[in-house]
Amino acid sequence: MDSFFKPESVAIIGASEDKKKLGNAILTNFINGFKGKIYPINPKQDMLMGLKAYASVKDVKGKIDLAIIVVPAVIANKAVKDCVDKKIPSVVMITAGYRETNSNGVILENQLKLIIKNSKTRIIGPNCIGVMDTAHGVNTLFTPAYKMKKPKNGFISILSQSGAVGTTLIDIAGNKNLGVSKFISYGNRIDLDESDIINYFAKDKETKIILAYIEGVKDGRKFLDALKNISKNKPIIILKAGKSDMGAKAAASHTGSLAGSYEIFKSVLKQGGAIESKDMEDMFDYVNILSENKKPKGKRIGIVTNGGGFGVMCTDAALANDLEIAEFDKATINCIKNVMPEYATIHNPVDLIGDADIRRFKTTIDAVTNDKNVDIVAIYLWTLGTTLDFSITDIISEVSKKTKKPIIVGASGSKYTKGLSTTIKNENIPVYTTPTRLMDAVKILVNRTLN
Amino acid sequence: MDSFFKPESVAIIGASEDKKKLGNAILTNFINGFKGKIYPINPKQDMLMGLKAYASVKDVKGKIDLAIIVVPAVIANKAVKDCVDKKIPSVVMITAGYRETNSNGVILENQLKLIIKNSKTRIIGPNCIGVMDTAHGVNTLFTPAYKMKKPKNGFISILSQSGAVGTTLIDIAGNKNLGVSKFISYGNRIDLDESDIINYFAKDKETKIILAYIEGVKDGRKFLDALKNISKNKPIIILKAGKSDMGAKAAASHTGSLAGSYEIFKSVLKQGGAIESKDMEDMFDYVNILSENKKPKGKRIGIVTNGGGFGVMCTDAALANDLEIAEFDKATINCIKNVMPEYATIHNPVDLIGDADIRRFKTTIDAVTNDKNVDIVAIYLWTLGTTLDFSITDIISEVSKKTKKPIIVGASGSKYTKGLSTTIKNENIPVYTTPTRLMDAVKILVNRTLN
Repeated sequence: MDSFFKPESVAIIGASEDKKKLGNAILTNFINGFKGKIYPINPKQDMLMGLKAYASVKDVKGKIDLAIIVVPAVIANKAVKDCVDKKIPSVVMITAGYRETNSNGVILENQLKLIIKNSKTRIIGPNCIGVMDTAHGVNTLFTPAYKMKKPKNGFISILSQSGAVGTTLIDIAGNKNLGVSKFISYGNRIDLDESDIINYFAKDKETKIILAYIEGVKDGRKFLDALKNISKNKPIIILKAGKSDMGAKAAASHTGSLAGSYEIFKSVLKQGGAIESKDMEDMFDYVNILSENKKPKGKRIGIVTNGGGFGVMCTDAALANDLEIAEFDKATINCIKNVMPEYATIHNPVDLIGDADIRRFKTTIDAVTNDKNVDIVAIYLWTLGTTLDFSITDIISEVSKKTKKPIIVGASGSKYTKGLSTTIKNENIPVYTTPTRLMDAVKILVNRTLN
Repeated sequence: MDSFFKPESVAIIGASEDKKKLGNAILTNFINGFKGKIYPINPKQDMLMGLKAYASVKDVKGKIDLAIIVVPAVIANKAVKDCVDKKIPSVVMITAGYRETNSNGVILENQLKLIIKNSKTRIIGPNCIGVMDTAHGVNTLFTPAYKMKKPKNGFISILSQSGAVGTTLIDIAGNKNLGVSKFISYGNRIDLDESDIINYFAKDKETKIILAYIEGVKDGRKFLDALKNISKNKPIIILKAGKSDMGAKAAASHTGSLAGSYEIFKSVLKQGGAIESKDMEDMFDYVNILSENKKPKGKRIGIVTNGGGFGVMCTDAALANDLEIAEFDKATINCIKNVMPEYATIHNPVDLIGDADIRRFKTTIDAVTNDKNVDIVAIYLWTLGTTLDFSITDIISEVSKKTKKPIIVGASGSKYTKGLSTTIKNENIPVYTTPTRLMDAVKILVNRTLN
C-alpha cells in the first residue's frame, strides 16, 4: 500500500482546468505539494495547468504509481481497466454512483470487482474522498482550502468510511494543532478494506495513534485480527456508526455497507483491545491523553484544585469511571498544611481555596505528585480566581517533566481560560474542559495501561 | 429578597483602597455600575475612593437595603450584629471560615445563626462569592474583569453553591453571548437556601430559565415543592455534585453541606420536573434548545444532511435517546427526488450528498419541515463541502421563522464551521457540535414538552 502514500508518479484521471470540478482541486493540490511526476488525464486537452495531458494512462510512457479517478461512474470502470492494463499498483476511486445508489450501481460495482480480479492493482473506494499524506505531498481532498484547517505533519493516522466525517476529523485536528500523518477515506471499499488499512498503519513507522470512523466491517474475523495486531503497540480509537437498526439502514445507502450487530461489534472491539468513542469530541479527548505517552502504575488519582466545586465534581467523575481517590500519605498532608490557612482541612481532593497563590499550588502539586499512593495527578484550575495567572503553566510543566506519573489538567471557561489552556497544552500536558471529560479520558488511559 | 438584587443603598463592610483586597474589587464594581447610595464601611478610613467611609453601618444615617461583608470571620459576626441592629434586610456574607473548616468554624456559624434569629435580616452565604444583577448594577463578584466575559442582560438566572463553578457558568454564558439576569452563589447557606432562591426566581419576571449547581439540599421536602413550583413555567437545569460517597465527603468540607443520597436526589428532580445535566457543557446545550421556545408536538425527527456519515450518527443518537425517525410522506419524497441526482434513493435521514447546492437544501428542508409526519427537523451540515456557504443561514432562518416546528442544526469542525455556526445561532437557531449533543438536547426538549 506504500504507493498510495509515497508514490513517485501520479495520474489524475478527470483532471480539469474548470475550477468547479473536483479534478481541478486535486490537480492543484498535487501541483502545489507533490514532488514527483504528475500526469493529468483528460482526452479533451493537450495541456492542463502547464502540464502535458494524456487521453489515457496507457498513453503515458513512464511508470505510474498512483492513479486518482474522478470521472463519472459510467466511464470510470473503463478508466480502471486502463490502470490494470498499465499495471498501476494503486488506484483511488473518488467516483460515486455504485452500490450505495441502486441496482444499476450494484451492477457497475460488480463489474469493477471483475476488472481488478487477479490483477496487481489495488483500489481505495469507490465513493470516497481519497487519501492524504502530510509528509509526501499526496492529497486528493477537494475541500476548499479556506474552509479547512490543514494539520501539520504528525503521528495520528485516520481512516474513515465517510468522507464528510473524515475531513471533519482532519479539520478538528488541524485546529487543535495536532499532527496528522496519513488519511484514508475508503467509502464502498470494494478491494482494500478497513482491516487492510489498519494492518498497514500497524506497520507504518510514522503512525502512532489511529482514529477510525467505521459504518460496517467487511470481514469480522479479519477485522478482529487487525485490531489485535495493532492495539498492542498503537492505540486505535473507533467511532462506530450504524449502531441502531435504522442507523444501519442509513449506512447501507451511504457506503453500501452492512453494519451488522452492534453488540457483536462492541465485543470485537473489546477483544481486539480497541478504544470506542461516542462522538468526535471524545475521540480527541482520548488522543490528548494517549499522546502524552506516560503509563500510570495504578488508578489512584490525586486531585488538586483552587475551586472546591470542581474538586467535588472531579471526585464524582473519577468514581463514576471506576477510578480510585488516593489516600494521601501523612507526609503529603503535613507538607500541604504548611502552605494553607490554619483552618483548612487537607484531604483528597485538595481544595487550595480561591485565593491560592503560586506557592500554594507548587508545594501542593509537588507533594501530591511525589506521594507513593498517587498514580495520576489531576489539577483542576479555577482560572477566574484573582491570584491565578499564566505562571501556573511553568509550575505544572516542571513537575510533569520530572515525574513519570501522568499529570492532567482541567479548566472550564471562555477566552482567558482557553488562552491559558493552550499554553499548558503546548507543554504537552492534556487539558480538559469539564471534570467529566477529564476523568473519562483518564479511564481510557488507565484501561489501556493496566488491562 | 428583592433588596438583594434591586437595592437603593448598599454598604460594603470591609471596603478598601488596597487593590489586592476583595473589598476593593467590590467597591469598584458598585462605583462603576450602581446608581444608588454606596456606603464604604472601614473603621480605619474617613474617605474611600472619593466616598465618605464609616466605622460601622450603625454610623450611617440613611437606610441601607443591602450589606456586603468581606471582613475576616473573627470580626464578621459582629458586623452582622450591626446589620441586624441597623435593620438591614439583606446581607451577603462573602467571608469564609465557618462550618466548611473545623469545629471552631462550626461554633462561629452557630453564633451567626443566633444573631439573625428572630430578626428581619436575611443572609446569603457565608463562604460565597455573592450576587449579581445585570439590570441593576449589583455585582459582588471579585473576579478580575480581564479574565471574565461579563454576560449581557438576559433571561437566564443562576444559583450556585460553589463560587468557582458559578462564576465559570457566567463566564461561559458571556462568551456564548447568552444573556443573564441574576446570579447567586450561596455557599454555606445558613439562612436563605437553594429552595428560597428557586422560589424567588419562580416569581421573578426577568428570569425565564434557571441554571443551578447544587452540592447538598438543606430541606428535601421544601426543595421538591420549590422545583414543582418553578418547573411548570420555567425550565430549571441542575448540575448535582457530591453524587458519590467520596464526592459527598468533599462537598462537606467545601460548603459544609450534606449531599445525601444521589438516588433520592434524582427521584426528587424527576418528581419536581427539573432537568439534570452531567456537566457544564450540556447545561448550555439544553439552554440553547429550551430558549428557542418552540414546542414539538411529538418526537418524530426529520434529518437532512449533506454528509452521509452525519446522517447515520444522527439516526443512532436519536434512537439512543428514545426519539423516532419520521417516516416521510410520499409527497415529501417525490419533492426531494426532483432536486436530487437520478440514482439517489430518498429516505430519512436525507443524504443530499456532498455536492448539495443551496437549491437542493432549500427544497428538501421545506419539504421535510412541511411533512405532517415530522415533529422536529434536524439539519446536520458538512460545512467543508465545496458547494455549501454562509447563504445556508438564510435558508434555515426563513424556514424556522415560518414554522412552529423546532429546527435544530448540527455542524462539526473548526474555524470556518464555528463562524458559520455563530451566524446561524444569531438567528436564534440552536447549533450543536456533534450528533450526540444535538440529539441529547432534542430529548430534553421533547421530555419537557410531552411529559
